[in-house]
Amino acid sequence: MSAMSGQPKKNLMFFSGRAHPELAEQVAKELDVTVTPQSAYSFANGEIFVRFEESVRGCDAFVLQAHSAPINDAIMEQLIMVDALKRASAKRITVVMPFWGYARQDKKHRGREPISARLIADMFKTAGADRIMTVDLHTAQIQGFFDGPVDHLFALPVLAEHIKQRYSDADLAVVSPDSGRVRLAERWAETLGGTPLAFIHKTRDPLKPNEAKANRVVGEIEGRTCVVIDDMIDTGGTVAKTVEVLLKEGAKDVIIAATHGVLSGPAVERLSSCGAREVIFTDTLPIPDEKRFPTMTVLPIAPLLAEAIHQVFDDGSVTSLFDGNA
Amino acid sequence: MSAMSGQPKKNLMFFSGRAHPELAEQVAKELDVTVTPQSAYSFANGEIFVRFEESVRGCDAFVLQAHSAPINDAIMEQLIMVDALKRASAKRITVVMPFWGYARQDKKHRGREPISARLIADMFKTAGADRIMTVDLHTAQIQGFFDGPVDHLFALPVLAEHIKQRYSDADLAVVSPDSGRVRLAERWAETLGGTPLAFIHKTRDPLKPNEAKANRVVGEIEGRTCVVIDDMIDTGGTVAKTVEVLLKEGAKDVIIAATHGVLSGPAVERLSSCGAREVIFTDTLPIPDEKRFPTMTVLPIAPLLAEAIHQVFDDGSVTSLFDGNA
Amino acid sequence: MSAMSGQPKKNLMFFSGRAHPELAEQVAKELDVTVTPQSAYSFANGEIFVRFEESVRGCDAFVLQAHSAPINDAIMEQLIMVDALKRASAKRITVVMPFWGYARQDKKHRGREPISARLIADMFKTAGADRIMTVDLHTAQIQGFFDGPVDHLFALPVLAEHIKQRYSDADLAVVSPDSGRVRLAERWAETLGGTPLAFIHKTRDPLKPNEAKANRVVGEIEGRTCVVIDDMIDTGGTVAKTVEVLLKEGAKDVIIAATHGVLSGPAVERLSSCGAREVIFTDTLPIPDEKRFPTMTVLPIAPLLAEAIHQVFDDGSVTSLFDGNA
Amino acid sequence: MSAMSGQPKKNLMFFSGRAHPELAEQVAKELDVTVTPQSAYSFANGEIFVRFEESVRGCDAFVLQAHSAPINDAIMEQLIMVDALKRASAKRITVVMPFWGYARQDKKHRGREPISARLIADMFKTAGADRIMTVDLHTAQIQGFFDGPVDHLFALPVLAEHIKQRYSDADLAVVSPDSGRVRLAERWAETLGGTPLAFIHKTRDPLKPNEAKANRVVGEIEGRTCVVIDDMIDTGGTVAKTVEVLLKEGAKDVIIAATHGVLSGPAVERLSSCGAREVIFTDTLPIPDEKRFPTMTVLPIAPLLAEAIHQVFDDGSVTSLFDGNA
Amino acid sequence: MSAMSGQPKKNLMFFSGRAHPELAEQVAKELDVTVTPQSAYSFANGEIFVRFEESVRGCDAFVLQAHSAPINDAIMEQLIMVDALKRASAKRITVVMPFWGYARQDKKHRGREPISARLIADMFKTAGADRIMTVDLHTAQIQGFFDGPVDHLFALPVLAEHIKQRYSDADLAVVSPDSGRVRLAERWAETLGGTPLAFIHKTRDPLKPNEAKANRVVGEIEGRTCVVIDDMIDTGGTVAKTVEVLLKEGAKDVIIAATHGVLSGPAVERLSSCGAREVIFTDTLPIPDEKRFPTMTVLPIAPLLAEAIHQVFDDGSVTSLFDGNA
Amino acid sequence: MSAMSGQPKKNLMFFSGRAHPELAEQVAKELDVTVTPQSAYSFANGEIFVRFEESVRGCDAFVLQAHSAPINDAIMEQLIMVDALKRASAKRITVVMPFWGYARQDKKHRGREPISARLIADMFKTAGADRIMTVDLHTAQIQGFFDGPVDHLFALPVLAEHIKQRYSDADLAVVSPDSGRVRLAERWAETLGGTPLAFIHKTRDPLKPNEAKANRVVGEIEGRTCVVIDDMIDTGGTVAKTVEVLLKEGAKDVIIAATHGVLSGPAVERLSSCGAREVIFTDTLPIPDEKRFPTMTVLPIAPLLAEAIHQVFDDGSVTSLFDGNA
Repeated sequence: MSAMSGQPKKNLMFFSGRAHPELAEQVAKELDVTVTPQSAYSFANGEIFVRFEESVRGCDAFVLQAHSAPINDAIMEQLIMVDALKRASAKRITVVMPFWGYARQDKKHRGREPISARLIADMFKTAGADRIMTVDLHTAQIQGFFDGPVDHLFALPVLAEHIKQRYSDADLAVVSPDSGRVRLAERWAETLGGTPLAFIHKTRDPLKPNEAKANRVVGEIEGRTCVVIDDMIDTGGTVAKTVEVLLKEGAKDVIIAATHGVLSGPAVERLSSCGAREVIFTDTLPIPDEKRFPTMTVLPIAPLLAEAIHQVFDDGSVTSLFDGNA
Repeated sequence: MSAMSGQPKKNLMFFSGRAHPELAEQVAKELDVTVTPQSAYSFANGEIFVRFEESVRGCDAFVLQAHSAPINDAIMEQLIMVDALKRASAKRITVVMPFWGYARQDKKHRGREPISARLIADMFKTAGADRIMTVDLHTAQIQGFFDGPVDHLFALPVLAEHIKQRYSDADLAVVSPDSGRVRLAERWAETLGGTPLAFIHKTRDPLKPNEAKANRVVGEIEGRTCVVIDDMIDTGGTVAKTVEVLLKEGAKDVIIAATHGVLSGPAVERLSSCGAREVIFTDTLPIPDEKRFPTMTVLPIAPLLAEAIHQVFDDGSVTSLFDGNA
Repeated sequence: MSAMSGQPKKNLMFFSGRAHPELAEQVAKELDVTVTPQSAYSFANGEIFVRFEESVRGCDAFVLQAHSAPINDAIMEQLIMVDALKRASAKRITVVMPFWGYARQDKKHRGREPISARLIADMFKTAGADRIMTVDLHTAQIQGFFDGPVDHLFALPVLAEHIKQRYSDADLAVVSPDSGRVRLAERWAETLGGTPLAFIHKTRDPLKPNEAKANRVVGEIEGRTCVVIDDMIDTGGTVAKTVEVLLKEGAKDVIIAATHGVLSGPAVERLSSCGAREVIFTDTLPIPDEKRFPTMTVLPIAPLLAEAIHQVFDDGSVTSLFDGNA
Repeated sequence: MSAMSGQPKKNLMFFSGRAHPELAEQVAKELDVTVTPQSAYSFANGEIFVRFEESVRGCDAFVLQAHSAPINDAIMEQLIMVDALKRASAKRITVVMPFWGYARQDKKHRGREPISARLIADMFKTAGADRIMTVDLHTAQIQGFFDGPVDHLFALPVLAEHIKQRYSDADLAVVSPDSGRVRLAERWAETLGGTPLAFIHKTRDPLKPNEAKANRVVGEIEGRTCVVIDDMIDTGGTVAKTVEVLLKEGAKDVIIAATHGVLSGPAVERLSSCGAREVIFTDTLPIPDEKRFPTMTVLPIAPLLAEAIHQVFDDGSVTSLFDGNA
Repeated sequence: MSAMSGQPKKNLMFFSGRAHPELAEQVAKELDVTVTPQSAYSFANGEIFVRFEESVRGCDAFVLQAHSAPINDAIMEQLIMVDALKRASAKRITVVMPFWGYARQDKKHRGREPISARLIADMFKTAGADRIMTVDLHTAQIQGFFDGPVDHLFALPVLAEHIKQRYSDADLAVVSPDSGRVRLAERWAETLGGTPLAFIHKTRDPLKPNEAKANRVVGEIEGRTCVVIDDMIDTGGTVAKTVEVLLKEGAKDVIIAATHGVLSGPAVERLSSCGAREVIFTDTLPIPDEKRFPTMTVLPIAPLLAEAIHQVFDDGSVTSLFDGNA
Repeated sequence: MSAMSGQPKKNLMFFSGRAHPELAEQVAKELDVTVTPQSAYSFANGEIFVRFEESVRGCDAFVLQAHSAPINDAIMEQLIMVDALKRASAKRITVVMPFWGYARQDKKHRGREPISARLIADMFKTAGADRIMTVDLHTAQIQGFFDGPVDHLFALPVLAEHIKQRYSDADLAVVSPDSGRVRLAERWAETLGGTPLAFIHKTRDPLKPNEAKANRVVGEIEGRTCVVIDDMIDTGGTVAKTVEVLLKEGAKDVIIAATHGVLSGPAVERLSSCGAREVIFTDTLPIPDEKRFPTMTVLPIAPLLAEAIHQVFDDGSVTSLFDGNA
């Protein structure tokens, strides 16, 4: 006979860039695998080099990288890892980016702007990615930027569960810090059991058109413990002002909850001093000790990622991981 | 000498599918061109055939089609026209779809759903489209679904101008019919000069969890002339209920304004009888006489499209057409 | 050790659009599977929505749709299903289109025409199709329009077997209704055991150039039972005239046999009254009861499709299904 | 001001591979240009090298190559020329292949075959071709193999004009040498003014199933001057037998007319001795002196190619060049 | 339940073009498989046809072809085989080209040249190749021309082992025949245990600028057995002159070692008469008996190829096959 | 008449990333244009935003960026600029990267490595680049990594002219710092008028295998002014050791000349103290004042870039800019 036969095996291998090794270790531990050893270093001019120390032929590769500052290094490292996996005959490559870098540039706000969130999708496709796994996209439409499967996981249940347990007696209201997150606030309100809803409307008073814009609260929040929600907090300016306005308008207490703690520049100072009772994040992005303060709570995202990776490897249904609350 | 030289010319040709010939005629008139003659017909089983009756070699082609019902026929006809233009050596092909079909399916709301708005973009790319021109996308992120330039025009100034003139004395408020359009409402409020803002929050009363969801108005609307805005109105259910709630909650008057009048099924009945004082659309989609009623106003979109086409042909700045209010 | 291992499984899942549910049920029954449950509906403006109700991760998907009228809806629904399968991580997607829509537009008959049959191939590729399975293409070259494997099945053995059994005593001749199907007629003649061959030549009499074109029979058919063959019959005009001419020129009897019964417009009336003794189709396209008439025979195509799907899933040889007569 | 402006020029440059320099010279002369000088040579192992000796930046390049034996060298040379033009910034590249190599392999006749005619189209696309110009494709569907414009020219008027002039008094009939060319024969018959039609049917006599296949003439040819037509003649076996059968069945005279004279192996001997009164080709492929014989006529194709190239460069209508007879 | 399940199998099938059947047989023997039977022949005009005689569905295909003269036929045959495999549903296609044709044209030496080595990579990608396996590329950068995995095997250990054994007592030096192969020479020197190094510098004497270029030896070779190395030897001119110069400059003996014996034109005469004591090749390219001479040694490459194919099929590490000496 | 006609214009616009504004200003000055104004800034987490302040429709865009440290930021900024240009309808986009980032990772040195130089090419293609302009690639094969035109400029004439003028009396020799740059050294030697050649061979003494590798000079350099050449100098380790060895072996003087001054880490200290008489770079990469030292000479690359850009815009021959010495 002319052919050689065999039984195919499938083999999950887990890889990690250097941006958030703690998360990688936690995910690996949850999966009961080890992070595949590799040489990865940066040349003095910033060029990144990666080489895997074990054969990756035929493996089902999951490549985790946090798109944290310096974000272009993190993205380029992950792209280079994908290129190396493709050229080393990995069978399938899933890019795990808990925070999708450049997600805020998801449209042209004005003419002659880039759509960098799409560019990110295309670059990973070009490098060799078959699939993307991510958490709480800035807008859900970004899924459609990738020409292939995107597993879009939701951290909302993790964050909401924490709030439900700790503030079970409180009279909650959910507040969107601007007009663009009201839909997300509504999903939160439903998850928390049908709380009232409000948002901050930046406007000029039509009677005083020459004055600066004011932040007005639209909705009822007086006497309530307000949960200010967002997908990410970067410099913290908007959210800190939101807390301030809410307290001024009679909120009893304010809690901040967001999936991605970008936390750049003055964020820590603003958040720790804005008057919020608690500030809650997941660790999709690394939050080093020096950025933590007493009222900050960081919830682990590793269990969600590990479960999703396991289901993807097993051809199980990931939908169940994010569909419950929809 | 070895070569033959010449002076290139550029040549705008304007094409139209059969879905909305009136709009095509108006745009052509504004541009001072004629619609390129073609044979277009449908076989008895629905297959569409198109052939252009003039040479299109080297032309800068603009192909207009309204994605109106039966929408799949309209889309397929436009795709076939693009294929024919590509194979007949048109130099550049701009697909003009004032309403982007399937725009509402711009993300996976749950697992195992398509992202049809991206599929539309990819199919036009595959057929040969170089560029897309469209009006008021359901979400601005859809621009990023196309791998090439998208001229995203805004009808808001057209609609708002009409309201400003007709209701110059009224005490206006802008209302989003649900939590997902609050950002758009904010842009309206700013264009109208800083009016108050409200939105309808569908919720269960936390104290009466067994009852059905209720529509609550979040924001101040009492005594005001409310402008309920949306990008499109399909069956009119949500917007009609919004009018009802607003009037019940003390609005003085309600006006409805939306760019795209899809107007399917019971829409006409609902809109004409919901109590709104005026219902305003543009004619990005055809609105036949039998769907018109006394309180409906239809504003022409042709001047905006013609101006944009002219600028694109001339390499002028289209940004000025949609940037003013951003 | 660093990796998680497993044994891959392969899993055939069978999907069906809404154009021809009977055929889907028959194929499923032959395969001993069930059609995967899904939500599929059309919005009032014609937009189609599909969602699968079971996880499709890692499956070997076969998606059946009849490209029947309204054909653009049928095609778009199948494209959307393929997009949803791709985004839900199906492992391999085989598009089963027993009749390839737009197959007649397989070339530019004149300048400035589309090649829509190629466009169909490209759109399915873009949506995510890995393979296509089809029956009796209008021209075999259409296989080459798809950049991937095409399983091109032949219904001729099914049709011919029926004729051989029912007309075993007859003196048969095979007739092509025009000059473009003579090759197919020759394949039929061989399958039926070497019968004579004829075709209808549309021509002007050179001696009477001003008269209209006449249909002349080229070949010997006098006294014979003529089998008029074609790949598809749409409005039935050509084939009805062929029957008429044949009977006038002395044919004893006429049978019509074609794979695809498009049967639009006046087809049923023409076929039922043209004088043919029997009109034979397969059910690659749905033929509703109201289109059936006493002399029509509809042979089931499901066994052929099911056998081919089974072989494709099993990596068996499909060639044996269509190679016997070549 | 920030930019530098200029007036673009367009510049036709004409290139030729080494397969058929005479044709290139004739086309260049018709166009009143010179063939762009280049270095082109083959290394001892067959590798081909090409370099252009003038700048080709921004030019509108037309690259002529006859796909004549050794055909793979001819094709590869043309591909390499296209690659070099792409990398040297030619603005547009039109591949002129009067005979499309591998056109006969335009479908899978049986399973596990290539579709090499599509492969040719894809390879030229990959190398950088924007457009293809060709003459008398084996099947018109091959146009659809290329993802871009194909100018498909027809030599039939050239050939038919010759016959009409030389045989104006003859009683003509058009004969297809097999069942697959009857459509082409019909087009010929119409061009010649409505002549009768016939074809050769290879068959087994149903009464003598053990005997070899026989060639039967289907149609009336007795006493007529038969024009046996085909798109190409390779080894000449089929056509020579056709002549033999026609003469035996009472044809008065036989003329052979085909666009492409592949003429390999025993073709010259067969054609010169088969009894045909005249054998007519165009020179889409080179026909060297040693392959010519007294009854062969070779008509020049250069005027048709030059006219088409000129129209393409000028954005004129090529359709008029091949549409007259459709 | 709705689905049909099964256990996937993997199945290595080995295919061979007609350029070097002996090598295919040896590789097959090493792998303990047979070469898959096929019909392959060339039409009289050079067109190649291939059809496999067994089902290849789902197989892991390895397609061997030596890119030997006539090289364009060899390459086209392999491309056509890949196309046929793709269309016949092979699961994965690895192109095995021990010598990468056109590898010397890996850059534009001057403007307006092609980069044919990249074109080769792209054409195989277009035809359907998933992976490439090759031996001793002219420059290692060529790996990067292919958008996918390239298994780049090294024959150096095979060649060096032979020299180490046969010349264990000799005082060796490694010599590059020109300035572009010094890096390769260094790798050889290291493999042979740290021998001295030299290269031939083609130069004009600055003091005699009008004289022709001279070949100067840079490095110490006096009294040593020089191993002149190269990746390939084509016409043998450079290497024969190198031997001459080395002997003139005092080399004790000269051995020539190269992976690929292209051996065109005067190569055999030059090599056999240049004074080299031994000329060593592998049989990546066929070296027929008439090209062999007493001092030529041909080492078998089949074991290396078979081992690599086996590892690729098994998802083992091919790196170990070429990494030892890096 | 149906169309609108016009005369196309071409319009060069010049853009610059933020990595090397001085070079951009110089190139703009040479071209007599201004750098197109833009908003470009980095968010606190490193995300980059760019928006052009003038319309770019239809322009011929040249986008300059130095790939200097932090290199991933520089590359990402240029990619984002290209994306914005593509989406804003620039007609043609030429990426000007005087130093091609990641050029050293142009092959897999061992298994499981990336080929990052190819990844760079692919990412720019994906973003929308039509062409690349670059100076002195690490290996010329990298041109082939881009699927389109690459204008590869040579700085060698600039550097060599400086040396010829300043050291017209010296007895020069050209030295490659390792075995991989000997070919480049040979080109230098020829440009300088046929000087001797040498290179540094890193080796273990075969007689003392346990000792570390030694740097041996292969070639005659005694008493000569050695020009140590390279394409780039990063940390300066190799080149500094080369100077040391050369002086020890009797060189009279040593000059270092390289196109790209990456100059990271200890480079400045090493180069300024290694004993070289002069160290010459171009300013393809920014060399800030604090990295300059008395014996360093920096030659301007702007005239070469500007001339090439001008020629590309004008469809002139760039070949003349780099071909003179080939």
